[in-house]
This record gives sequence, C-alpha cells and structure tokens, in this order.
Amino acid sequence: MGDAAAASPLPSAKLTQEDLKRVAAHRAVEFVEPGMALGLGTGSTAAHALDRLGDLLRAGALPGVAGVPTSLKTELHATRVGIPLLPLGGDRGPTMIHLSIDGADEVDPDLNLVKGRGGSLLREKMIEGAGERFVVIVDESKLVPRLGCTGAVPVEIIPFGAPHTLGLICKVFDGLPGFHARLRMVKKDAEEDTPFVTDNGNYIVEMFFEDGIHGDLHDISNQLLRITGVVEHGMFLGMATTVIVANKDGTVTVMDKN
Amino acid sequence: MGDAAAASPLPSAKLTQEDLKRVAAHRAVEFVEPGMALGLGTGSTAAHALDRLGDLLRAGALPGVAGVPTSLKTELHATRVGIPLLPLGGDRGPTMIHLSIDGADEVDPDLNLVKGRGGSLLREKMIEGAGERFVVIVDESKLVPRLGCTGAVPVEIIPFGAPHTLGLICKVFDGLPGFHARLRMVKKDAEEDTPFVTDNGNYIVEMFFEDGIHGDLHDISNQLLRITGVVEHGMFLGMATTVIVANKDGTVTVMDKN
Repeated sequence: MGDAAAASPLPSAKLTQEDLKRVAAHRAVEFVEPGMALGLGTGSTAAHALDRLGDLLRAGALPGVAGVPTSLKTELHATRVGIPLLPLGGDRGPTMIHLSIDGADEVDPDLNLVKGRGGSLLREKMIEGAGERFVVIVDESKLVPRLGCTGAVPVEIIPFGAPHTLGLICKVFDGLPGFHARLRMVKKDAEEDTPFVTDNGNYIVEMFFEDGIHGDLHDISNQLLRITGVVEHGMFLGMATTVIVANKDGTVTVMDKN
Repeated sequence: MGDAAAASPLPSAKLTQEDLKRVAAHRAVEFVEPGMALGLGTGSTAAHALDRLGDLLRAGALPGVAGVPTSLKTELHATRVGIPLLPLGGDRGPTMIHLSIDGADEVDPDLNLVKGRGGSLLREKMIEGAGERFVVIVDESKLVPRLGCTGAVPVEIIPFGAPHTLGLICKVFDGLPGFHARLRMVKKDAEEDTPFVTDNGNYIVEMFFEDGIHGDLHDISNQLLRITGVVEHGMFLGMATTVIVANKDGTVTVMDKN
C-alpha cells in the first residue's frame, strides 16, 4: 500500500461522493487556528466543514474562532452547530477574514474557479475575496482543463432590462461556436416558469460553452463587469490560495497557488 | 442685441431656473425624428422634454416615436402625456435606442457626467448606454471643471455587506485629502434613519471630493466596478454625445462630443 492510499481513512471501494466531500472538508479545517475570522461557504461540501468546525469548537479546540456566513442557509447551519457569527464590515471599515473554506463547481489548473451554479455567488465572492487565504474543497470530478467545460457559468444581473442585459452578455462572446446563454428559470407552477431570484433579489444568466472558455479570463471578466446591469459573475479568478482534492481512492491532493 | 440674445424667447431678466430647463429641453426635442426609439430621462429637466414630446406626438408631428422610460416616475409621466412605451430588450437581443434625452448633475469639459444624485442611475445608464446618441440638457450651473466638484458622486451597491463594500470603496481613494464617503440615509421616523433604497432594491454610497476627482476617470471607474458588491456608479464617461446648456441670459449653447 503506497503513501497516498495510507492517507485514506476508509477502504477505497466503499467511498461515496459524500465520503470524499467529507474527507476534503476535514482536511481544510486543519488550517483553522484559534482566534481566526472565517468565511463560511455554502453547499454540500462546505456543510461538512461546518459540522467539523462545530465539533472542534464544542471540544474547546478552537477558542476565539468566528465566521461570516455566505448565505442564509449557512448562517442557520453555523448557528445550529455553535459557530459564533461575525457581520461583514462595520464602522472600522471592511472585515478582514483570515481564512475562507468553500466548495466549487469547477477548478482549472491555475486554481481559477467556477462557483455559483447553486445560485449563490455574490455573497461568496464578497466574503472569500475579503480574505487572506481561501481554501477550496472539491472531489476530483470538479477538476477541469478549462472553466466552463462541465456546465453553466452563472452571471448575476439586475432584473430590470434583463433581456437587454442578456443580449449584451451574448455580444461579449459574439460568434463563438457553441456558445449560448439563457436566463435561469424555475418552475412556478405546472403552467409557467419564472426567473430564479438570488438572495439579493437579482436574476441569473447561465452561459454555456461547448469546449470551455478559451481566451484571457481576466479580460472576459472585465468585459462582463463593465456591462451596466451585470452585478457579478461566477468566475473566481486568482482567489483560491489552496485547493484540496479528494480523489476517488480516498487519497487527498493539496494544490497551492504559485 | 447680439445673435445669442436673439435666440432667447423671453426677456433674460425674468428667466427662472425652471424656464432655463424648459429652454434646453425643447431644444433637445428638436433632435427627435419620426420612428425613433427614445431613452426617456428622469428628473425635473427631463420632465420638460416629456411634456414637449407629448405635445408634438398629439399634434401628429412625430409618428412612430416610442420611448423606454428610465424610472417608474418617467413611465407614469410618459403614459400621462401619451408617449408609447417600449420594453428594454427582448427575444431579438438588446434594444437599439436611437436617442436618449436626460438631465445631469454635473458636466465636465469632456462631456463626462455625474448623474444619479436623485437616486436613479442604474436604469439611466443601461438605457442611455444602449443608444446611438445621448443628448444631455442642463442649465449652466451644472458645468464644472472636474467631476465631483459640486456634491456627491453616487455608487449603487448590494445591501448585503454594505459597510464592507463602503470600506472597499474608501480604499480606492485611500489617502486622498478631503475624500469621504457614506451610505445615503433617509429619515424613517423621528427617531431613526434608514438606508435609501433604489428602484432595484439596492443602497447608495455617496462619495465626496474636496476639489473634484483628479486622476484617470476610466481607471477609477474600473476599480469601482471590480469591487464585488458594487453594481454601478454615477460617472457617465464618454456617453454624452451632445450637451445643451441653457445660460442664465436665456441663450443656449450646444456642445458636441469631438
């Protein structure tokens, strides 16, 4: 048995995707030190980190730790497991967050991310962008050669003039074969679909790429952000400082930003 | 009596600021041609343009003209005076607007504007930025040597984490003497102030400069737009194609973009 396999707490044949998420989450929580202000992510992988943090806090292992939740769901979860909460910003200026822990939808070789397919990207970007260190936890199915390979890249937009803003977003990728974008919809009732609404009362445009996003991601990001009506997008560029990958065999790979 | 004075329809001694706004607005409406899709501005000066458009439409002078309103207030006003309305964007992509007419809070020598002190900037920027031509109507008190000389430059932000975002906005102008910024508040009741809420459900940060904004406006714009939590700002850079100025003596100056 090699070193990597020895790191697995469970026989690899029995590991579910949920097990893998838990393995990565627990490893991320090892970075937490007493007194830290944490950014608390949202989603099924981040939820395992919340549970683990709660266990350690109750055991008295991490005195002075508190967290800023990235969603209402995470706020409720953190409260339930006993993680003290911090507001984002106050009279003394922006909040300094020491460490954020969150999942991602895609991770490219430069540790750029796609996040927000669940509909929550703006609060995550505000909080995780405010930190010194951002540890991303994923199972290996999230590793991609290019962003946009495995599904939608979300863009949060103002509801007013949404079809106009959608049209301007499409113009950024004008003529790109296989590109399309649409407003994210949810079932309202049996008869009718209605636009999905974010925590901030906005809509989501989903961008789809046939073979991922080729080209300069920072340039594309700036083009999107300059569109009046666009609030944010789900490309998290240069933000992740560490990515913890749980492999199918139960081993863990830790990738640090250069 | 010189040529300029001859252009005045009223003896100059009796012209109120309201008269001047009307003079500029009527001049702007001369640019409207049959069949045009118009961006309809918001505010006391733009209101004179709506009245004039309504008169001309009722007289049959401008067949096929319709407008996209920049606020609910303008929508109601336009409907009242009989201007047909258009939606912003649709199945065929972004709306093409031929001409927008609106007021401004400040106009600099390069025809850059500050807009939105009334609290409406995002919809105006979406609509006026979608047009071929943008005619700005002001009285001469709005001409400034630099943007930010005469009052607040507004920034629309997401309510979540507003104190954090305010702190990040301040960091863009870190160390600039005389700069300060604050969340725009309104009186809720005798006891308490509450944040002003925009048409889009967002908050407004007001930035104040002791001697206006020195430095590269486009660079400052990009820095602001890159802050997660910032939706838009009230600097309208390179958007105005014509500025019509009503002077105190009742003459009109027309400035075209180079």
